[in-house]
Amino acid sequence: MTETFLPVDAMQMPRFAGIATFMRLRHVDRTDPLIDEVDIGLLGIPWDGGTTNRPGARHGPRQVRDASTMIRRIHPISRVAPFSLRNVADLGDVPVNPADIADTLERIFHALEDLRARSITPLSVGGDHLISYAVLRSLGRECPVGLIQFDAHTDLFDSYFNGFKYTHGTPFRRAIEEGYVDPRRMVQIGIRGTMFNDDDIVWGESQGVRIIRIEEAEQRGIDGVMAEARQIVGMEPTYVTFDIDCVDPAFAPGTGTPEVGGFTSREAQRLVRHLDGLNLVGADLVEVAPPFDPTGATAWLGASLLFELLCALSQSPSTKKG
Amino acid sequence: MTETFLPVDAMQMPRFAGIATFMRLRHVDRTDPLIDEVDIGLLGIPWDGGTTNRPGARHGPRQVRDASTMIRRIHPISRVAPFSLRNVADLGDVPVNPADIADTLERIFHALEDLRARSITPLSVGGDHLISYAVLRSLGRECPVGLIQFDAHTDLFDSYFNGFKYTHGTPFRRAIEEGYVDPRRMVQIGIRGTMFNDDDIVWGESQGVRIIRIEEAEQRGIDGVMAEARQIVGMEPTYVTFDIDCVDPAFAPGTGTPEVGGFTSREAQRLVRHLDGLNLVGADLVEVAPPFDPTGATAWLGASLLFELLCALSQSPSTKKG
Amino acid sequence: MTETFLPVDAMQMPRFAGIATFMRLRHVDRTDPLIDEVDIGLLGIPWDGGTTNRPGARHGPRQVRDASTMIRRIHPISRVAPFSLRNVADLGDVPVNPADIADTLERIFHALEDLRARSITPLSVGGDHLISYAVLRSLGRECPVGLIQFDAHTDLFDSYFNGFKYTHGTPFRRAIEEGYVDPRRMVQIGIRGTMFNDDDIVWGESQGVRIIRIEEAEQRGIDGVMAEARQIVGMEPTYVTFDIDCVDPAFAPGTGTPEVGGFTSREAQRLVRHLDGLNLVGADLVEVAPPFDPTGATAWLGASLLFELLCALSQSPSTKKG
Amino acid sequence: MTETFLPVDAMQMPRFAGIATFMRLRHVDRTDPLIDEVDIGLLGIPWDGGTTNRPGARHGPRQVRDASTMIRRIHPISRVAPFSLRNVADLGDVPVNPADIADTLERIFHALEDLRARSITPLSVGGDHLISYAVLRSLGRECPVGLIQFDAHTDLFDSYFNGFKYTHGTPFRRAIEEGYVDPRRMVQIGIRGTMFNDDDIVWGESQGVRIIRIEEAEQRGIDGVMAEARQIVGMEPTYVTFDIDCVDPAFAPGTGTPEVGGFTSREAQRLVRHLDGLNLVGADLVEVAPPFDPTGATAWLGASLLFELLCALSQSPSTKKG
Amino acid sequence: MTETFLPVDAMQMPRFAGIATFMRLRHVDRTDPLIDEVDIGLLGIPWDGGTTNRPGARHGPRQVRDASTMIRRIHPISRVAPFSLRNVADLGDVPVNPADIADTLERIFHALEDLRARSITPLSVGGDHLISYAVLRSLGRECPVGLIQFDAHTDLFDSYFNGFKYTHGTPFRRAIEEGYVDPRRMVQIGIRGTMFNDDDIVWGESQGVRIIRIEEAEQRGIDGVMAEARQIVGMEPTYVTFDIDCVDPAFAPGTGTPEVGGFTSREAQRLVRHLDGLNLVGADLVEVAPPFDPTGATAWLGASLLFELLCALSQSPSTKKG
Amino acid sequence: MTETFLPVDAMQMPRFAGIATFMRLRHVDRTDPLIDEVDIGLLGIPWDGGTTNRPGARHGPRQVRDASTMIRRIHPISRVAPFSLRNVADLGDVPVNPADIADTLERIFHALEDLRARSITPLSVGGDHLISYAVLRSLGRECPVGLIQFDAHTDLFDSYFNGFKYTHGTPFRRAIEEGYVDPRRMVQIGIRGTMFNDDDIVWGESQGVRIIRIEEAEQRGIDGVMAEARQIVGMEPTYVTFDIDCVDPAFAPGTGTPEVGGFTSREAQRLVRHLDGLNLVGADLVEVAPPFDPTGATAWLGASLLFELLCALSQSPSTKKG
Repeated sequence: MTETFLPVDAMQMPRFAGIATFMRLRHVDRTDPLIDEVDIGLLGIPWDGGTTNRPGARHGPRQVRDASTMIRRIHPISRVAPFSLRNVADLGDVPVNPADIADTLERIFHALEDLRARSITPLSVGGDHLISYAVLRSLGRECPVGLIQFDAHTDLFDSYFNGFKYTHGTPFRRAIEEGYVDPRRMVQIGIRGTMFNDDDIVWGESQGVRIIRIEEAEQRGIDGVMAEARQIVGMEPTYVTFDIDCVDPAFAPGTGTPEVGGFTSREAQRLVRHLDGLNLVGADLVEVAPPFDPTGATAWLGASLLFELLCALSQSPSTKKG
Repeated sequence: MTETFLPVDAMQMPRFAGIATFMRLRHVDRTDPLIDEVDIGLLGIPWDGGTTNRPGARHGPRQVRDASTMIRRIHPISRVAPFSLRNVADLGDVPVNPADIADTLERIFHALEDLRARSITPLSVGGDHLISYAVLRSLGRECPVGLIQFDAHTDLFDSYFNGFKYTHGTPFRRAIEEGYVDPRRMVQIGIRGTMFNDDDIVWGESQGVRIIRIEEAEQRGIDGVMAEARQIVGMEPTYVTFDIDCVDPAFAPGTGTPEVGGFTSREAQRLVRHLDGLNLVGADLVEVAPPFDPTGATAWLGASLLFELLCALSQSPSTKKG
Repeated sequence: MTETFLPVDAMQMPRFAGIATFMRLRHVDRTDPLIDEVDIGLLGIPWDGGTTNRPGARHGPRQVRDASTMIRRIHPISRVAPFSLRNVADLGDVPVNPADIADTLERIFHALEDLRARSITPLSVGGDHLISYAVLRSLGRECPVGLIQFDAHTDLFDSYFNGFKYTHGTPFRRAIEEGYVDPRRMVQIGIRGTMFNDDDIVWGESQGVRIIRIEEAEQRGIDGVMAEARQIVGMEPTYVTFDIDCVDPAFAPGTGTPEVGGFTSREAQRLVRHLDGLNLVGADLVEVAPPFDPTGATAWLGASLLFELLCALSQSPSTKKG
Repeated sequence: MTETFLPVDAMQMPRFAGIATFMRLRHVDRTDPLIDEVDIGLLGIPWDGGTTNRPGARHGPRQVRDASTMIRRIHPISRVAPFSLRNVADLGDVPVNPADIADTLERIFHALEDLRARSITPLSVGGDHLISYAVLRSLGRECPVGLIQFDAHTDLFDSYFNGFKYTHGTPFRRAIEEGYVDPRRMVQIGIRGTMFNDDDIVWGESQGVRIIRIEEAEQRGIDGVMAEARQIVGMEPTYVTFDIDCVDPAFAPGTGTPEVGGFTSREAQRLVRHLDGLNLVGADLVEVAPPFDPTGATAWLGASLLFELLCALSQSPSTKKG
Repeated sequence: MTETFLPVDAMQMPRFAGIATFMRLRHVDRTDPLIDEVDIGLLGIPWDGGTTNRPGARHGPRQVRDASTMIRRIHPISRVAPFSLRNVADLGDVPVNPADIADTLERIFHALEDLRARSITPLSVGGDHLISYAVLRSLGRECPVGLIQFDAHTDLFDSYFNGFKYTHGTPFRRAIEEGYVDPRRMVQIGIRGTMFNDDDIVWGESQGVRIIRIEEAEQRGIDGVMAEARQIVGMEPTYVTFDIDCVDPAFAPGTGTPEVGGFTSREAQRLVRHLDGLNLVGADLVEVAPPFDPTGATAWLGASLLFELLCALSQSPSTKKG
Repeated sequence: MTETFLPVDAMQMPRFAGIATFMRLRHVDRTDPLIDEVDIGLLGIPWDGGTTNRPGARHGPRQVRDASTMIRRIHPISRVAPFSLRNVADLGDVPVNPADIADTLERIFHALEDLRARSITPLSVGGDHLISYAVLRSLGRECPVGLIQFDAHTDLFDSYFNGFKYTHGTPFRRAIEEGYVDPRRMVQIGIRGTMFNDDDIVWGESQGVRIIRIEEAEQRGIDGVMAEARQIVGMEPTYVTFDIDCVDPAFAPGTGTPEVGGFTSREAQRLVRHLDGLNLVGADLVEVAPPFDPTGATAWLGASLLFELLCALSQSPSTKKG
C-alpha cells in the first residue's frame, strides 16, 4: 500500500469538496499505468435497460460517488482499514449503450474480462440488476461461483413480455442456466412482496437455491440467517450482490421496484458485516435510482453499504494480487 | 370468478402503463350491469372537510390508485389470491361536496346504502377519518358492528371549536353514541402523541372501548395484541379502519396529523395479517394526504396495506354474494 | 355529439375526484362497441426505450391524465368546445414492451393502424420522441404528411452509439428517409442548445426542412414564425408534434433533456393557438418525464397544451368521421 | 413613527433568525395597548374552507411570515419607506374554524370590524379567496368600495355543487350582490384558463365589471392596462385583492388552482407599483398554498408583493390615523 | 402557574394558525418584565458557523418553532403537564454573527449568562453542536456539570484543518479541557459511523468519558443503557445534549452529517423518557438542518423530542425558581 | 489542441455516465505535468463562509460539475468550439477551510497565484460571492482590472454585524479599496430588491461604478445595456463575475439570497453572449446553492452559462498561452 491509493485527506480538502470519485479514491482508467497495481476496482455500470418498471438506475453510479465522499477510512466495529489492506481505485464507468440490451451486456462482459485479465476484483455499482448477469458471466465462466443475494425479489423469472429473456427480473435464472452460478451454493435473503405466480420460487428451489423470505429473517434474526448463508456458500469462491430494494423504502426510497416491509439500515449493515472472512471474488450494489430520491438518502445508504462490502472484500484471500 | 374481475395482466401491459384504477381492476360504475356481480367494491371517498389540521386527504384515492397498480395478484405468505376468491372491482369515487360537511356525509351514506342494497362489501379509501363515520352509519344502522381501529389518535373527542360535532377527531364518538358501533367490541391499536386532555380516553374506556397504546403494543408484541383484538371482536360482524398515521412518519409522511414513534411498515403488515379469518363486513384506509408526500411512499404503503385488507376481506364469510 | 363523450361534470364530481382519464373523458377500449363512434382518440404511449439521456417519459401518460382532470370544456379565447364538435375518448395506453425497442415500435404501429382502420384521429401522449416515428409510420405510409415540430432538438441525427438507428434523437430522420414525412412541408420551431456537430441541421436543411431556432422565433415574434409555418405546411394533411422540452425548464422541468432558454408557457400557448384551421391528421405531446418533476407542473402545462392541440384538431376537416 | 414599529434590525439579528412575524414587525395583539397606535395591520387569515379544488391555503400566512423576514425597509424604485410613513404591525391571525364556513366568515367579519373601530387599515394574507368576501363585508358595508382584482379567475360564479353559495369561486358575486363592492368601479386583471361556461363573465360584465384577460394585458402592456384600472376606480375608496394564481405557475407553483400562461414576477411587480397614489382602504394577498411548494418560492414572491402592496397603502390618504 | 405561560388554546386558534413560537408559548424578550417569572426558557441559537460539512442548521430554530405548534400540553405516558409545573416561555433567538465564530461564541455565552443571572434554565435549539460548548461555558464555569450526550459522533476531536480548535467536531473536548464538564460524569450514546482515526475515542476514554456505541445500545437495550447513564451522572447537576443525528436518517434526514444505522424515533423517545427525575440544569437539541428536509419531518421529530426534554426539565429540582 | 483536452465523447460514453468533471474535461491537478499546457482552468471554490443569509453555496461546484456533463462542444449561435481554441481542463477544487474566513481567503489567493504563475486563465465556480474578492486580489494586484458584474445585489457594503469586513455583501468594496478593480471600468447589471439603505449605491457611484438596475435593463433592452457595458470596460483587461441570483428565482431557485423580478434564462444567455471579443482575463459563476434546489435546475442553468463564459474567454487574446 502506498499513498497513491489512499482517499483524499479530509483535513486537506473537506469531504464536500473535490471531484466526486468513489470514496475519494484515485481515478485510474485502463490507459493509466497504475492500473496494474490495483487489487480492487470500484466500477460504475450506469445502465437500466433491463428495467421493466421504473427506470433511473442508470444515474446510480454518479449519485453513489457523490455520497461516498462522506465515507472515512476505518470500519467502526472491526477497525478494518480497507485502503491499507488492498490497493483500491475508482475505475470509472463501463461505456454502456442506453439504446440496446445485447450490445450493453457485451460491453459489460468485456470490461469485466479486462479486469479479470489484470486480476482486479470488481466491486460494481449499478445500474439495474441485469448488470450482475454480465458480471457473473465473466467471473463464473470457468467455474461457477457461489452467490449471496440480498434482495426483495428473486430475479429468477424465465422471461417477460412474451419471451424476452434478458431483463432485471431474470438475471439469476440466466446465470444458473448458463453455468456461471452454482445454485446449490446460492442463497437469497429478504424476499418479499406480492406475487404474480410462484414460478420463480418453484424453479429456484428445484435447482437448490435457498430462498429466505424477510419474515423468516425477522423471526430467526440476522445472525441465524447469515450463519446459514455462510454455510451454504462455504469457503469456495463467492460473489455478493446487494439490491438496495432489500431495504425498506423508508430507508431507501430511491429504487425502481420498492417493496414495503424491508430491512432497516441497521439490519442491512449487520447482514453485510457477516460476510467477513468469506472467499469473495467480487460484489455489487444495484438498483439505486436517484430520480426517485432527490435527497440522496438512498445513495448515502448505498455508499455506506458499499464500504461494508469493500471491508469484506479487502479481507478475502482472492482479492490480493499476485 | 371470471376473467372479467381480474387485474390487467402485467405481461400484456406493464404495471406503470394504463389508466390507474385500484389494483388495475375493472372500473364498474353504478350504471354498469356488471355491478350486480361484484362482491367487494374498492371505493374512493376523496374528502377532507372534517380535517382540523393539515388538509389534503381528498387527494388520497387518486394517489393510492396510482400506487396500487404495482400490486400483484397473490399474497406472499398466505398465498391467498383475492381476485380468485371474490369478484372485486373499482367502483370509482363517491361524488363528495368539498364545500359542505353535512351534505357530504349524506352523499357518502347514500352511496354506501346503495352498495348495501346490492350486497357489495365496501373497501374504502379516504379521505379523512370522518368518512368512516358515514360508512358505519350504513353498515351498523341495523345492528352495531365490532370495530378494529389502527390509529395514532382515538378520534373519540366530543367536539371541536366550541361545539362542532363532526370532524375527523370525533367520528367514533358519534358512531358509538348513534349506535352503529358496539363499544364493547371495539379496540384501538397504536394510540400515541401528546394530549390536550384525556376526555377521549376516559369516555372511551367508560363505554368499554379497549385502547392499546403503542408502548403496550411494542412491549407485548404484535401477536399478543392482535390475539386480544380478535378475542374482543369475536366472530360477529366487524369493521376495520386503518388510519395511515398509526404508522411512523418515516414510513408514512403523507398524512395530516403525523405522530412520531409509530409502527414500522413490517409491524403494520403483521397487524393486518392477523385479521385473517374474522367475520369482516367492510374496511377502510384513511388519511393518506399526498401533498405532504410527493414521492408517493405513503400511497405505496397504503396500497400494500389495502391489498392485505382485501386478502382478509376475501376470506370473510360475509363478503361472498348470495 | 351526445352526453356519452362529455367529460364528467365538475359540479357533480369535483375535478380532483374520480378515476383519472384524459380530461375526464370516457375510457373506451378496443373491445367497447362505442369505439366506432369516436372521432378523436386520446392515447397514451408510455415508453422511453429510445431515450439516450435521462429516462422517465414512460410515466408521462399517467401523470398527464392526472393533471388533465383540471381541464374544463371551453377554450377561453376561441370559445371552441371540442367535446361538442367531435366525439373524443380516452383509448387507454398502447401495450408497450419496456425491454425491446423493435417490438415496441411494432406494437405502436399496429395500435395506430387499428385506429386508422376505424378513422379515429390520434392525439397521443408519450413517451419519448421515438414514438412519433411509429405514429408517422402509420399516418404517412400511404402519403407523406406535413409536420410541424415544436422542439428544442431537431431529432434528425442519423444514429447513436455506433450505428443504433432508432433512438429519441433520430425519429424524424427515419420518418423522412422512409417516406412518411415530406421534408419540404416540415418545420421545426424552438431549436437550441449546445451542439456535438451540425450533421442534423445540414442534413435536414438539405432535405428542405425549415429549422427555426429559438433566437429567430424571439426576434420575429411568435405570430411571424407561425405564419411562415402555416405557409410551409399549407392545407395538405399535417401532423403536429409537441416536445415539451421546447418550453424552458423553469416552466417544464420534468423532461429528459432540458435546454435552458426556451419558450415561456404563454409563448407555447400562442404557438399552438396558431394551428387553428389547418388540416391536421393527428398530433402528439411527448417527453413529459414525471420523475424529474414531482410537483407535476410539467404535466399540468402538458395537459393545458394537449387541450390546445385538441381544440385545433376538433376544427380540422380530417378529424370528423364519415 | 417610532422605533416601536420598525422591523428588527438585520445588523443586530440576521434575517434568518428570530421569531417569524410579518416583515419582522412587532406582534401586537388586540389586548396590547399599542394597538391603538397602529395605522396598518398585517393580518393572517389561515383558512381554506371555501376551496373547491386543492386545499392548503390555510398554511399560507405562516409561510409568508417566514419568507417575509427577508424583506428590507425601503422600496428600491420609489424609495418609499413604509415603516417610516405609517405605524405597521403584525396583528397575528384571525381565529378561524376549519370545520365550518359560516362560523369562520363571521369570525373574520368581526375581526375586521374590530380593526375598523380602531381605524386600522387591514393588509391581509389568506387563506383562500373567500376571505376577501368577509373583509369586504366590513369595509364596504356602509359604502361600497372600488375593487382592483389581480387574478386568473373571476370568482364571480353564482354557486357550486347545487347551490352552495360561499366558496372561493363566488366571493365577488356575493360582494356585489350584497352591496359591498361597486361593480362599476371594479376591474379584474389576468383572467385566463379553460372555462366550464361563461356565466361568470356575462354576469360580471352585465353589472359593469371590467374584465381584462391576460392576452389583452400582454398585448396592451402593463402600463396601459393599469392606466385604465386607475381610471376605473378613480380616487374614491378602493380595495385591492391579489390572488397569487394570477402569476404563472413557474413563478408561483404553490397555489390551489394554477393556470398556465400567467404573469411573470416582473410583470406582477409592475402591476402593483401602479397602485401608488390611489385612495386605498385595504388589500389582501390570497391563495398561497405551501403544501404545493415546499421550496417556499411562492411565499417569497408573495412576501415581495405584500411589501409592494404595503408601500402603496402607506401612501394612501386613508391609511393614516386620526 | 398562570394562564400567562400556557400555550395558545387549540380550540380557540387552530394549531396551524398564529405566529409560530416554540410550543405556542408567549414570546418573552429580555426587556419584558415577565422575564423574571420564567423558570425554563426555550431559546433559539440559529448558527452553523462551526459546521465542517453540510451547513443549514442556522435555519433549525425557525423550522422547529413551526413544527412545535403541533405539540399539545400533556405527556401521553407520564401525564406530566410541563406548562403547569413551570413557567415556560419562548425567549426568542440569540443574536448571532454568521460571519465570525469567536464573536458568536461570546454572544451565546453572554446570552446564557444573562439567563443564569435570572435563574432561568435554558432549553436551547441549535444550530450546530458547537453551540453546546458556549452554553456549557456558562452553566459549568463555576462547577463542572455532568453530561448525557445523544449523538452519532463523539465531537471530541482536538482540531480541524491544521489547528482550528472551535468547530462542531470539537465542542466537548474544549468543554472538558476548560473545565465545564466533568468527564467522569459524562456519557455518549449512539456513536457510530466510519472513522478517520480513533483519537477522539482514545482521548475521551482516557478522561473517563463513557462512550456507548449504537451496537452496544442495540444489544443491551435502551433500558439497560439508560440505567447505566443515570448511574454515571448521578443526582448532581447534569446537562443533556441531543444531536438529532443520533437518530437514523430515515427518521431525521435533515441534518448536516447523517450516519446510517441510527436510532428509530421510538428508541429516541424511550432514551429521553429515562431522564425523568435527574437533576437537570439545562438541555439542548441541535443539528436540525432544514434545507436537507423540506418536508419538515426532522423538525417535527425534533419538536417532539424537545417536549420530552421539557417534561424531564420541568420535574428537575434545579429548574424551579427561587 | 490535441485530443487530450477534449471532453469525453458522448458517443463512446453517454453523458449521464462517467465521473463528473466540469464539461467532461480531463482532471489535471497541480502535480500533473499536463498542467503547463492548460490555457483555461475550470476551478471549483466550494466555500460559503462569507454568507450572511442562507448557506449552501459550498456545494455548488460539485452540482455544477454534475450538470455540466450535459454540455456539448459547440456554441449553437456563434459556432465557437472553445475546446478547439484553447486547452481547457478541470483543475479540481481549491482546498478551502470551512471554519475560517481569513485562512480560506489566503488559500484561494495562493491557488490563483499559482495559476497566474503558469499563465492559466481562471474560470471559477463558487461558492459565495466573497470568493471573487480573493480571485481579484490575484488578478488585479499589479494592475486593477475592469469588472462586469451580473448580480441582483451590489455587494458594495462596507461591513456587516458591527464591523465585519469580509462577507459576501462586501467583496467589491474591498476589491476597489484595495486597488484590484478600477471602479471607473466597472459595471453592475441586474441590481434589484428591497433596500436597508443606499450606502452601497451612493459609495459605488461616488467611485465611478455604473449601476444598472433591472428596470433600466428591461426598458432599454439587453443589447443596449451591454453596448454600454462594453464601452465602460473597453479593451483593457476585464474580469466577469456572474452571480446566479441575477436570474429570477423561477429559473434559478438554488441560491442563498433570491430576489424576485430577475432576468429570464434567455436574457441571461443574451447578456453573456455580448461578452464576445472583450479582453477577458478571467470569470466566475457564483452563489449556486444546491440545498435549495434538489432538482438541479439552477446548476443546469449555471453550467449552461459557464459554457457561454467559456466561449467568451476562449476568444479573448489574454487566454492563449505564451
